[in-house]
Amino acid sequence: MRSRSAVILANGSFPTNKIPLDILKTSEFIVCCDGAINKLEAADIKAHAIVGDLDSLTNDLKRKYQDIIHHFSNQDTNDLTKAVNWCLSNKYNDITIVGATGERDDHMIGNIFLLPSYTKKMKVRMLTDYGTFTPVIRSRNFDSYIGQQVSIFSPQSETTITTANLRYELTNQKLDMLWQGTLNESMGDSFRIDFEGDSLIIYQEYEK
Amino acid sequence: MRSRSAVILANGSFPTNKIPLDILKTSEFIVCCDGAINKLEAADIKAHAIVGDLDSLTNDLKRKYQDIIHHFSNQDTNDLTKAVNWCLSNKYNDITIVGATGERDDHMIGNIFLLPSYTKKMKVRMLTDYGTFTPVIRSRNFDSYIGQQVSIFSPQSETTITTANLRYELTNQKLDMLWQGTLNESMGDSFRIDFEGDSLIIYQEYEK
Repeated sequence: MRSRSAVILANGSFPTNKIPLDILKTSEFIVCCDGAINKLEAADIKAHAIVGDLDSLTNDLKRKYQDIIHHFSNQDTNDLTKAVNWCLSNKYNDITIVGATGERDDHMIGNIFLLPSYTKKMKVRMLTDYGTFTPVIRSRNFDSYIGQQVSIFSPQSETTITTANLRYELTNQKLDMLWQGTLNESMGDSFRIDFEGDSLIIYQEYEK
Repeated sequence: MRSRSAVILANGSFPTNKIPLDILKTSEFIVCCDGAINKLEAADIKAHAIVGDLDSLTNDLKRKYQDIIHHFSNQDTNDLTKAVNWCLSNKYNDITIVGATGERDDHMIGNIFLLPSYTKKMKVRMLTDYGTFTPVIRSRNFDSYIGQQVSIFSPQSETTITTANLRYELTNQKLDMLWQGTLNESMGDSFRIDFEGDSLIIYQEYEK
């Protein structure tokens, strides 16, 4: 299948870092979660689709964007998941999520730990103002640089993990607590994470 | 044991919300994590102890604060844990953590999911710019208000949870995924969470 990429703007803090901001500005297709359209308007960037339950949109905005609004009122999924599902249905299979952190802390944790469920169906990553979260469902190499701060989050504590080229190596180890895989560091221009289990989430800080 | 309270200022974003800011300003004892002293100085608030590996302090600041600096170079714990352990050693057993979110996303997740390990030894809570994280090791009631947004994080997926007075009730249920307990809501001026397992982390948004 040909790769079709889109950027999803979630309704957390609007990006301030140049890296996610540039990706948003140069995206050919922006899917906006519900109320985030207000922030996109303020930044003078054009949305191509607005997805959500629309409970935070004024009537004026609903009229203005009626041609690109996709209303899903399902209360069992959050707005980010609605946007991801809309992308899938519309054959966008390479997704970058921005604006999903900052603001409500519980939303942010929810958004980050939803990433593995998305990656089973598409290529996905989340860019914050500080770094990148990449969900993985199979062992792989990561491009890096010497000294890059790296954290490994293991949502299922029974997952066994082996790393190569990180300062604190894991060898068939489990991470029982979510904080245990944080604050690692790359030793070169790539590192590798092998694991047996459902999924991991890898955090890499941006190059300064 | 008599309760002795302290506020720990972590080295994430300095609080901007009035609730954590007022608690910081009126605290009788402020323990500052390492480099956070720069932000406390800028806010013209006095620290009573500075704890950490001091790698982000200038020589001028080290001289200025030499009488209240407590240097711990242990690389196996982060600065927040060093500050919590210092409080414990000095008989501060009622701790409010502020400034632990914002900035590096992986630090933030680490800080939040370290809370249960602290609460086995002391009373502890974390205040962000949006709400309160309370780690719990036994079933209890929570003061609330009608419509308060509540999220339940279950670090150990085998923990069974029963709630009372929340919009989406749990009855002897497990939360396999970290996002599954988010976005609940209080139905009154209190709610209750009963559980069997090691610990939970309860998030409550501030009253608007």
